[in-house]
Amino acid sequence: MNYDVIVIGSGPGGYVAAIRASQLGLKTAVVEKESLGGICLNWGCIPTKALLKSAQVFEYINHAADYGIKVNGTGEVDFESVVKRSRGVADGMSKGVQFLMKKNKIDVLVGFGKLKGKGTVEVKAADGTTADHTAKHIILATGGRSRELPNLKQDGKKVIGYRQAMVLPKQPKSLVVVGSGAIGIEFAYFYKSLGTQVTVVEFLPNIVPLEDEEVSKGLERILKKQGINIMTNANVESVDTTGDICKVNVKTAKGVEVLEAEIVLSAVGITTNLEGIGLEEAGVKTDKGKVLVDDFYRTNVEGVYAIGDIVKGQALAHVASAEGIICVEKIAGEHPEPLDYNNIPGCTYCSPEIASVGYTEKAAKEAGYEVKVGKFPFSASGKASAAGAKDGFVKLIFDAKYGEFLGAHMLGFNVTEMIAEVVTARKLEATGHEIIKSVHPHPTMSEAVMEAAAAAYDEVIHL
Amino acid sequence: MNYDVIVIGSGPGGYVAAIRASQLGLKTAVVEKESLGGICLNWGCIPTKALLKSAQVFEYINHAADYGIKVNGTGEVDFESVVKRSRGVADGMSKGVQFLMKKNKIDVLVGFGKLKGKGTVEVKAADGTTADHTAKHIILATGGRSRELPNLKQDGKKVIGYRQAMVLPKQPKSLVVVGSGAIGIEFAYFYKSLGTQVTVVEFLPNIVPLEDEEVSKGLERILKKQGINIMTNANVESVDTTGDICKVNVKTAKGVEVLEAEIVLSAVGITTNLEGIGLEEAGVKTDKGKVLVDDFYRTNVEGVYAIGDIVKGQALAHVASAEGIICVEKIAGEHPEPLDYNNIPGCTYCSPEIASVGYTEKAAKEAGYEVKVGKFPFSASGKASAAGAKDGFVKLIFDAKYGEFLGAHMLGFNVTEMIAEVVTARKLEATGHEIIKSVHPHPTMSEAVMEAAAAAYDEVIHL
Repeated sequence: MNYDVIVIGSGPGGYVAAIRASQLGLKTAVVEKESLGGICLNWGCIPTKALLKSAQVFEYINHAADYGIKVNGTGEVDFESVVKRSRGVADGMSKGVQFLMKKNKIDVLVGFGKLKGKGTVEVKAADGTTADHTAKHIILATGGRSRELPNLKQDGKKVIGYRQAMVLPKQPKSLVVVGSGAIGIEFAYFYKSLGTQVTVVEFLPNIVPLEDEEVSKGLERILKKQGINIMTNANVESVDTTGDICKVNVKTAKGVEVLEAEIVLSAVGITTNLEGIGLEEAGVKTDKGKVLVDDFYRTNVEGVYAIGDIVKGQALAHVASAEGIICVEKIAGEHPEPLDYNNIPGCTYCSPEIASVGYTEKAAKEAGYEVKVGKFPFSASGKASAAGAKDGFVKLIFDAKYGEFLGAHMLGFNVTEMIAEVVTARKLEATGHEIIKSVHPHPTMSEAVMEAAAAAYDEVIHL
Repeated sequence: MNYDVIVIGSGPGGYVAAIRASQLGLKTAVVEKESLGGICLNWGCIPTKALLKSAQVFEYINHAADYGIKVNGTGEVDFESVVKRSRGVADGMSKGVQFLMKKNKIDVLVGFGKLKGKGTVEVKAADGTTADHTAKHIILATGGRSRELPNLKQDGKKVIGYRQAMVLPKQPKSLVVVGSGAIGIEFAYFYKSLGTQVTVVEFLPNIVPLEDEEVSKGLERILKKQGINIMTNANVESVDTTGDICKVNVKTAKGVEVLEAEIVLSAVGITTNLEGIGLEEAGVKTDKGKVLVDDFYRTNVEGVYAIGDIVKGQALAHVASAEGIICVEKIAGEHPEPLDYNNIPGCTYCSPEIASVGYTEKAAKEAGYEVKVGKFPFSASGKASAAGAKDGFVKLIFDAKYGEFLGAHMLGFNVTEMIAEVVTARKLEATGHEIIKSVHPHPTMSEAVMEAAAAAYDEVIHL
């Protein structure tokens, strides 16, 4: 078949690009070898949020008395049902994408897609048969997978990645999580809240190392209070999986410590899916595992584009979607602005949650800014008190000279829903005073954003 | 004592004005006859949110199986503990205001404040003794109280207002709520979710009648599904409280119906506290129960100001706070902008929640705008699916001609935390495309704002 656009990969980069392309009048197909929606819908963002919701409900039950509610005995986790619910949510969303493909008249080509000569994509089905399709524009959106370290080989049973972590046949009694980015911390929180004994091992000095240091330190304190064992500046040297229980050799400043756990989760980042998709044959340039693209996701080969995890920028679903839309709008002759990678929010859905965007305090100073920092703790928020959610804070960073809104760092209940305000405000080049003078509803947690801005300018009311 | 500023009333208008005044170097006192923080902290926003949190936890327990969690038997409401927790939260916040007064060196004058001649406030203590205090600037912030209708006299036992509703000695088996604004609906939801049989009687054709009609209709459908009996176009003609059970005579198009209930809650709005505060003596002009003020809250009498429920504009805590700050900044010689009453968010904390700001669709059309409307249902949101919160939608209204962001109307889980983005965006004069191009984190409910904006411009992805 001959298309205007073929997208290889149907994750949140690919399927969103395909829908936008179709909206713009382009005849479009998407190639998918597994489930529509990619990792995000099937093995990432969505099913993990379903698991975490179950954990939240379980925690409410265990703390019901704090809210004046009596429960006979305690709640009990039906782990199989928790996993089943999560799979159901993922399947529902994947079916939703299927519906969207149909509605937007996008062909779904089932199989493994590969660049093959100019304007051609070869799709290899599960039975080995191949079919060629042509398109003026081919968008690579093949995404990523769990990164494997040589000293932490995943066997999928005892040493696992995120995929296995969300469908374990039974809840492990003990778990070592290696890596404390969003994925590692979310699983650590999830399993701990269900009663698993959890240790997190982080190579760097702080957990969630990309976050502002105050967020990292604050979360570490809270997770430790929840009973999670946290080791920082710690390196997993090897794992012995020969016995019933894994023995994890962890090197710290104090020497080597051996941790025992039923399961070891490797959450040390992702690696891109660039193998076998015809990059070398087509002459598409890559560097350090990423496809090189310009601001509109054009590779060095005419008619070939790349978006999502396999290009520069944060490997996040919403980034991939935004890139896909920009890429396709440019192809269609629209005039999209390049994506501002400094205004991409990042979220971690443990409890309390993390949400952040822009410069950390340290990064802002390193970039030469003189900063004004405002911080408002949820312990001073009426809504947080009423909700029993006083942990955490909102920290905002402004440029002292011109008032530029440099960054926001939030730790607390539900802050993942509060960061959008900052993203939009920064998009609109808001100053601190414009935030202060935007009347936030009372009582909400979102007032903390206004108060933190006020704190930066010595106008905070509730501190 | 001689002050720069005396504020009469320590609600969210008064105490916030006092703090800002003190920050600006003004010697300040606040007069309070009861508890610091006023109705909002003690008998309004804060304690009701605590009650509603207990209801939410109870609902999670009753639906725990949906999330894969087993509970032995069912949860049981310890009503006394629920109320006690709520009072504890309110007391904690009131103590917080006490701390803020001390920290900001604001004198708290305990008693009933009254204007007395030029620049003088008389404070009458509970024991009847009076003391005069002088100030260059006197700010009236005496707030409101539950409005009483002649055919719905409150006896505080069987026919009650919001104050009694949050401290009932025991959970009523049945309740009739008269009026379906935020207060009425929050209590209806609260008591229903704890197991009380609840009927809401609304005089107008729609519940939450100030909201966009789609929100009203959507919420009505959901509340009915929850088992709340809702009567609209219905007028309470009288209540017979002579027996054990109240008999409420409700007139509808079909005739008069008699409802029976243990308790009748009158939630038909508020009335302002203007009695006995010396307005007539000082010559302060009022109209229809409101003190007349200019854009900076100056009354017709020099040196006398009024803010909060007793002046024009929405009777909401955050409005009172914003007014107090503007009033005081102007007194201190700063240059605050007048408050934009069209950019004030309103929230109702039933479940699902309501949050809205700006024009409803109907009001926009009546104001002569040609509108572009975008709507995104949470049933299409991945986060909502994962959270088991698919009810509701985000509806955004734009001016078709110039792209002005006219209003936002949200019904759904936690939308009270999502409306701040719209307030800030409107403050910054955002267009729809600036919202669309602000990268919202995935997966969040807040993506629905971006998608609804995209829907208005035929660019929505997930519909």
